[in-house]
Amino acid sequence: MSFSLHPKLQKDTFGVTELPLCTVLLMNNSSFPWLILVPRVADKRELIDLSPDDRHRLLDEVSLACEALKTVYTPDKLNVAALGNQVQQLHVHVIARFTGDAAWPNPVWGLPSKPYEESAPVIERLKRALGGR
Amino acid sequence: MSFSLHPKLQKDTFGVTELPLCTVLLMNNSSFPWLILVPRVADKRELIDLSPDDRHRLLDEVSLACEALKTVYTPDKLNVAALGNQVQQLHVHVIARFTGDAAWPNPVWGLPSKPYEESAPVIERLKRALGGR
Repeated sequence: MSFSLHPKLQKDTFGVTELPLCTVLLMNNSSFPWLILVPRVADKRELIDLSPDDRHRLLDEVSLACEALKTVYTPDKLNVAALGNQVQQLHVHVIARFTGDAAWPNPVWGLPSKPYEESAPVIERLKRALGGR
Repeated sequence: MSFSLHPKLQKDTFGVTELPLCTVLLMNNSSFPWLILVPRVADKRELIDLSPDDRHRLLDEVSLACEALKTVYTPDKLNVAALGNQVQQLHVHVIARFTGDAAWPNPVWGLPSKPYEESAPVIERLKRALGGR
């Protein structure tokens, strides 16, 4: 079966760019600068479902996403997580956190989303920071 | 400065084994089979503070921890996360999740801990699954 993005990820995010392994998405929640990386490999649910090479590639792209958020937002902390309890397609959250943000010091999941009023400039800045044109 | 384990991690966990890069700990919370991997590198807070080689090594050891939890517990899902909002020493949570567990389908953080009555057999089983003797 070929890869296609999970409908829930499609619905909750904007596309930012394509890296060699992952599609990079921006969560439509302006409370937190929040990227999601989805390896374009069909039928994977766990990190360990990927080949060892793809795992390393994923971590390299997660690191790139961390650097991009650091460059654009200068956060106090980065949160990186592969949970997938609700969406059964392997995806990694990379989130910029601030000591004064809406969830600090707790994790961000479970709070109501605050959709972007204008997402295009944010997407553009992140895309550039991720090396996309 | 040389590496030493953060006092909060020391207090909340039991030692399981030492892998080449990471010290592996068991969270003293019997509600969830919950390992924590701490790279023995001083003064690191973010994944991207590690060298690219150490990042790959960390992911290999996280994968080993995932496999060990899978072998011992046959969980429905694995959760992997590097948050570090409260403990400022780089550490990665690797948690076995079940569709009927105390937090499902939400993340595990923020719930009260239920300390183990008898942790030794659990630690022994996990240590063996991680290749330790």
